[in-house]
Amino acid sequence: MAEIPTEFKDLLDKKGFAHVATIGPSGEPQSSPVWYDFDGYRLLFSQTKDRQKYKNLQKNPQIAISIHDPDDPYRYLEVRGEAEEIVDDPDFAFINSMAKKYLGKDKYPYLEPGEERVIVKVIPHHIPG
Amino acid sequence: MAEIPTEFKDLLDKKGFAHVATIGPSGEPQSSPVWYDFDGYRLLFSQTKDRQKYKNLQKNPQIAISIHDPDDPYRYLEVRGEAEEIVDDPDFAFINSMAKKYLGKDKYPYLEPGEERVIVKVIPHHIPG
Repeated sequence: MAEIPTEFKDLLDKKGFAHVATIGPSGEPQSSPVWYDFDGYRLLFSQTKDRQKYKNLQKNPQIAISIHDPDDPYRYLEVRGEAEEIVDDPDFAFINSMAKKYLGKDKYPYLEPGEERVIVKVIPHHIPG
Repeated sequence: MAEIPTEFKDLLDKKGFAHVATIGPSGEPQSSPVWYDFDGYRLLFSQTKDRQKYKNLQKNPQIAISIHDPDDPYRYLEVRGEAEEIVDDPDFAFINSMAKKYLGKDKYPYLEPGEERVIVKVIPHHIPG
């Protein structure tokens, strides 16, 4: 496990976007932005079960996340690691906490009927640079 | 080849950051942000020859690029494709044009002594969503 350097810890509290790269069915990279949280040593993000990224991580937990500082786009953090744990978010507590952080709302306003969500917990193995 | 949808063409002129995902030496994804340009059908970015991303693309040209709109972070474009062509930028014409777009400067101000740069030209194969 690698630790996120102290000088980047402030970035983990900011309302930036984390671009998440996973490996698709043909071994190809895929990338998309997500909201993120930090539990003290892992990066966390929410995902619906019907998204390709969720399916990719079930097959191959290798993941890279790059975040650029919304206040200074020339400063960025890359984390390479593994989706160590993927747990259900049945009462939407986690996605609601993300809505609180990013939108200032108590409930995530974009839930679709029947939507199932998980929390992906990413353990850093390597922090380049 | 896939074409970038018309409704995203404006994004290609903006000064956003493109998060580039490539496949590393152990098959793991890697991700980092770059400046980008568009030549009408391919996404272009500059890279130094000593960076891991350049080495990755020499071995495996598969690439994914996600760009979120700097004016609306909930709007984003993902391009999956291939580094179809990687050409030298010996007189730094391309990186200088990127400095013009992003910094309003005629010359890229961060060149290191002896730095060698290439232009990576990414052909879209699939535009998800």
